[in-house]
Amino acid sequence: MSETKLSINTLAGQIVDRMVADAARLRLAVSVGSRGETVIDAGKDARGGIEAGLQIANICLGGLGSVDIAPTGSNPNWPFQISVRSTDPVIACLCSQYAGWALSHGDFFALGSGPGRALARVEPLFKEMDYRDHATRATLVLEGDRPPPAEIVEKVAQDCGIDPKNLAFIFAPTQSLAGGVQVVARVLEVALHKAHELKFPLERILDGLASAPLSPPHPDFIQAMGRTNDAIIYGGQAHLFVSGPADDAKALAASLPSTTSRDHGRPFADVFSAYKGDFYAIDPMLFSPARAIVTAVETGETFHAGGVDHALLDASFS
Amino acid sequence: MSETKLSINTLAGQIVDRMVADAARLRLAVSVGSRGETVIDAGKDARGGIEAGLQIANICLGGLGSVDIAPTGSNPNWPFQISVRSTDPVIACLCSQYAGWALSHGDFFALGSGPGRALARVEPLFKEMDYRDHATRATLVLEGDRPPPAEIVEKVAQDCGIDPKNLAFIFAPTQSLAGGVQVVARVLEVALHKAHELKFPLERILDGLASAPLSPPHPDFIQAMGRTNDAIIYGGQAHLFVSGPADDAKALAASLPSTTSRDHGRPFADVFSAYKGDFYAIDPMLFSPARAIVTAVETGETFHAGGVDHALLDASFS
Amino acid sequence: MSETKLSINTLAGQIVDRMVADAARLRLAVSVGSRGETVIDAGKDARGGIEAGLQIANICLGGLGSVDIAPTGSNPNWPFQISVRSTDPVIACLCSQYAGWALSHGDFFALGSGPGRALARVEPLFKEMDYRDHATRATLVLEGDRPPPAEIVEKVAQDCGIDPKNLAFIFAPTQSLAGGVQVVARVLEVALHKAHELKFPLERILDGLASAPLSPPHPDFIQAMGRTNDAIIYGGQAHLFVSGPADDAKALAASLPSTTSRDHGRPFADVFSAYKGDFYAIDPMLFSPARAIVTAVETGETFHAGGVDHALLDASFS
Repeated sequence: MSETKLSINTLAGQIVDRMVADAARLRLAVSVGSRGETVIDAGKDARGGIEAGLQIANICLGGLGSVDIAPTGSNPNWPFQISVRSTDPVIACLCSQYAGWALSHGDFFALGSGPGRALARVEPLFKEMDYRDHATRATLVLEGDRPPPAEIVEKVAQDCGIDPKNLAFIFAPTQSLAGGVQVVARVLEVALHKAHELKFPLERILDGLASAPLSPPHPDFIQAMGRTNDAIIYGGQAHLFVSGPADDAKALAASLPSTTSRDHGRPFADVFSAYKGDFYAIDPMLFSPARAIVTAVETGETFHAGGVDHALLDASFS
Repeated sequence: MSETKLSINTLAGQIVDRMVADAARLRLAVSVGSRGETVIDAGKDARGGIEAGLQIANICLGGLGSVDIAPTGSNPNWPFQISVRSTDPVIACLCSQYAGWALSHGDFFALGSGPGRALARVEPLFKEMDYRDHATRATLVLEGDRPPPAEIVEKVAQDCGIDPKNLAFIFAPTQSLAGGVQVVARVLEVALHKAHELKFPLERILDGLASAPLSPPHPDFIQAMGRTNDAIIYGGQAHLFVSGPADDAKALAASLPSTTSRDHGRPFADVFSAYKGDFYAIDPMLFSPARAIVTAVETGETFHAGGVDHALLDASFS
Repeated sequence: MSETKLSINTLAGQIVDRMVADAARLRLAVSVGSRGETVIDAGKDARGGIEAGLQIANICLGGLGSVDIAPTGSNPNWPFQISVRSTDPVIACLCSQYAGWALSHGDFFALGSGPGRALARVEPLFKEMDYRDHATRATLVLEGDRPPPAEIVEKVAQDCGIDPKNLAFIFAPTQSLAGGVQVVARVLEVALHKAHELKFPLERILDGLASAPLSPPHPDFIQAMGRTNDAIIYGGQAHLFVSGPADDAKALAASLPSTTSRDHGRPFADVFSAYKGDFYAIDPMLFSPARAIVTAVETGETFHAGGVDHALLDASFS
């Protein structure tokens, strides 16, 4: 195995370079920040769009995946599905795509995702991850409506061990088309993250694919966030391929879908309101695809659980 | 916004260059015409095929979109769907893909589509379009069975303000596989064009996706044209994302589908015959996807109208 | 027509070069064999995965096709479908992808597929094929769990007329993720091969697309082979576009689906056992997609036959 040579910041950086070259086509605003960092606005003052969101999702996956949209027919009201696959879902989703790096300074707060996290490795999650990047450039994606202040740029550069001028930040509000697409494209990542929460050994997750409907944006942040989460929670499906005993795969499939959560059954925005906006009061088991398919490759058995809720998607998206 | 740097002829020209390099693989016949222009036959004497049609569709979109085919399952008899998305549907579809440039000389007549239109800007439509290309090369796609005569080449070169040797013409009969694919790939364009006919402000159309079934070719021109139109009119669906008031989005959705047309309900070839082949007597409202989904991004509301008619597709395609 | 310039080993070799450069990302083990040949392990000691399988399938098609995975919704238990299309299905599928080159030495046996076959041209099938490659490099794909011994490498190099150091072998067991994907991606090839068995003139097959569900792997070779075959035999669909009389197209459609076989109706592994593992005792008519759609482009008629058997897929895959 030559996985040690894999640099997700280098791979993602190639996509960033193409995005910058394609800025006019993708309707992005590219600028240089106060510390020399590259700043890409994909949905605040720039128009961005669905295509920009797909490219951002590819960057979030650290260049280890591919994200596409196809018409599917399973729900006639929302026919376009975002699909995600990855050559290495654990590294792509957990070491890169998961929005786990809390960045705050003054009134600025954003959760950073993307391959830069695997250079900084400041989150507790990385204690359980073998993967470490050694790139000389880094990229972070921020779900939000403004670029990071200079203090955050400096902190990220320092934690990543690179010069700020080799750092790229891409930001898009959840309310924007690009922002919404890149969140829904986390449908595979949430399956990986919940598997980890369920203590399933990550090294046993060999491969995976997932899909979720393209949710329409909403101008209100809570509603926008609600819809992208509903796309995954009520419309997402993930198929994981795991090693180890079939009983473990069966247990994983049974626990993985959002249907197992006590908070399942109403639109995410309503859940969020019911908990008075306290994100951490929401049952973490809610954050997963509606349906799970888990194949135990060492026995050949496959286990299915959960189910898509078209009526709830219609209520949430309309 | 840096959209002024966007050159659709330059972007499409890169695809043309790859097509020429790939001519054997794509089964195209590439030649140099009497004025030095590049001529690509994709379905008359050359075999061409579905893949060539997809590439031509990408050229028609001015390099601002992507066209693909995927199996969908929504109609078991015609399972493969062509899907189209664009980074900028107004420029891609109306300034480039729309077949709006009537080119005639002697007994030659063809409707030109593709990015060359945005250099020439001779059509009334361009009075309402901000976009202007400044490329030094141009590409036009002709739905027909022969290359343009020298007089048309000279006229196009002059109108585009370029040397004829920097001009590329791609032609494929509607009856050919490539020709049929590139017409069905207009499913997003017809939605944009009808929105414009309905006086919906184009600058409010932010993004869009569409799909339609791959229609089988027919050796008769009328039947071939009928089927490609039926794929869109009875099998197409488009999802547009627009700014502005929700009422406008709702009105657009209600008017957009082909179901609103007085000529809706029978195969296009029959409609065409009923009007004795007078294309301009047909209700222009017929030329649109069967289903429309319009999201008003400023309010978050989505409106649905129309419906796919599988029985009519079966009758038309069989 | 400039098809004589087409070199499928050169086209596929470009994909091989990218795979080697991407070995870490695709989780492949690349080594140099005893005769200087490139050896790529995609599923034995290397982890490989679905993405590696898609790339191998592209190589099998001689660079003349494209293979993708999309969620479709037609069978909720197995939502992800592999789809295949080709710019030239006869050359791609029969001169390259068909696993027709039996390679054996001592206890080593493998069926070779891929573009190297069209350089060697040692199989009887090539007597009926106009296509001949003239590349100075060759690639073969082996469905199996070990690289070829030196004697096989030398034989292949000699038959291909190239230096062994310009030869690449890619191998993956049927039980592996990559191995399973590349077999299911033969859904279009089996349609072409059966058409040939049925004496349909190959030069009349102009174009084609096909799809089949992604089957889950199984650790037992017979079960793994059974599932990949069931994906095609009970879940595959192919749409061919042919020239010539409609009656011939109608007859081809009627005969093409696996439903016409005396052995149709139970999982392939059961059929294999019933014949005591004698592969050649199985009705060759079984090896084809479940559904066939054949369009006679010279008359515009389309003929449908066969049908997908979701219940059997569920039984086979679970």
